[in-house]
Amino acid sequence: MLIEKNFSIYMTKITVPEPTLRRLPIYLQFLKDQQKKEVNEISTTNFAEALILDPTQVRKDLAYTGIVGKPKVGYTVNELIKAIEGYLNWNNLTDAFLAGAGNLGTAIIGYEQLKRYGINIVAAFDKDPYKINTTVNGIYILDIEKLSDLAHRMHINIGIITVPAPEAQEVCDIMTQAGIIAIWNFAPISLVVPKNTIVENAGFSQSLAVLSRKLTERKDQ
Amino acid sequence: MLIEKNFSIYMTKITVPEPTLRRLPIYLQFLKDQQKKEVNEISTTNFAEALILDPTQVRKDLAYTGIVGKPKVGYTVNELIKAIEGYLNWNNLTDAFLAGAGNLGTAIIGYEQLKRYGINIVAAFDKDPYKINTTVNGIYILDIEKLSDLAHRMHINIGIITVPAPEAQEVCDIMTQAGIIAIWNFAPISLVVPKNTIVENAGFSQSLAVLSRKLTERKDQ
Repeated sequence: MLIEKNFSIYMTKITVPEPTLRRLPIYLQFLKDQQKKEVNEISTTNFAEALILDPTQVRKDLAYTGIVGKPKVGYTVNELIKAIEGYLNWNNLTDAFLAGAGNLGTAIIGYEQLKRYGINIVAAFDKDPYKINTTVNGIYILDIEKLSDLAHRMHINIGIITVPAPEAQEVCDIMTQAGIIAIWNFAPISLVVPKNTIVENAGFSQSLAVLSRKLTERKDQ
Repeated sequence: MLIEKNFSIYMTKITVPEPTLRRLPIYLQFLKDQQKKEVNEISTTNFAEALILDPTQVRKDLAYTGIVGKPKVGYTVNELIKAIEGYLNWNNLTDAFLAGAGNLGTAIIGYEQLKRYGINIVAAFDKDPYKINTTVNGIYILDIEKLSDLAHRMHINIGIITVPAPEAQEVCDIMTQAGIIAIWNFAPISLVVPKNTIVENAGFSQSLAVLSRKLTERKDQ
């Protein structure tokens, strides 16, 4: 039986569990909402009730950021925001290249929140001559042929793939060969990458798995 | 202390764990890759090795779909594909409305895979007079004012929100009041919804939490 050994998902060992990482932005959003309401302190129980999570889980998750709550008081909202953002490295901007300046690529380039998540798109690439040398939201669209050389020279770590599925693997290869070590993939395929390369699938399919199943269960009630 | 009780994330009780739901599309993609290579049978170990997961976890996850592997043989690839797609209700199309026909909305409308995930966008809505009554990839853009009436009449269950963050809550309210019970939200805010409404955040922030942290840990090695 032939099994694809290089299949890339979950290839990279990671010390913090992925479900914890996926919950941290939810805690952060909640904390920022509380901050706006001038709430200064918050307990694990407050979190757990508002987010319908187990308090022990919340405590465990937050401990990864290095912040430990005080008994009976809980956490200082501002401190915890800083700790989570620091842990996720969202208070530092990392330069990224994007390949594929179609609708999705354009949407990602124009997504104002990206900088809040530590991503700074410095250039975008496409093979369409009508797009090359234009700008989208202030970002230059360059010939995809130039990606490799520029990524090397600019020491780019993050590549965002928004090309159609049939072209995604080729673009991914160009990126990894150019020294890019983390791929944010929007193409609905499983990319094959060198060992230690990080691939995060933007996960429309994963998001829709949750939505569809919940809807099915809701209708069955 | 003022805590927002209606905070919507994880509001809906669900029998299957969300991490399992998020892994099912990954198993499915892998199975389809194997199907293309004419692999007929697959064991938990094959899965676990290829996807770097614990075999017990894989077995547990797959059991939710109602399929139990045979000892020493494992699973029939075709059967398991059908079981997962059936479990996620991806073999039935559910009609959906989309609000916000900007770049992201246009990208979602044009996303060919959506039907494979059981979502059928039947109409899109915007408030921009220059967009209203045009078509995007064969989908009519209608005045947002018409959403409520049409959603009621067409018994629409799923609403996709791709409007900017400041408008998202208002659009969400229109949708839920129009009988929409599942929201796929791309706006970077926490929507407040009636009890039992399903909200799945498309989760750029969650995806980027995983990417950023993995990259930080990779650099620290």
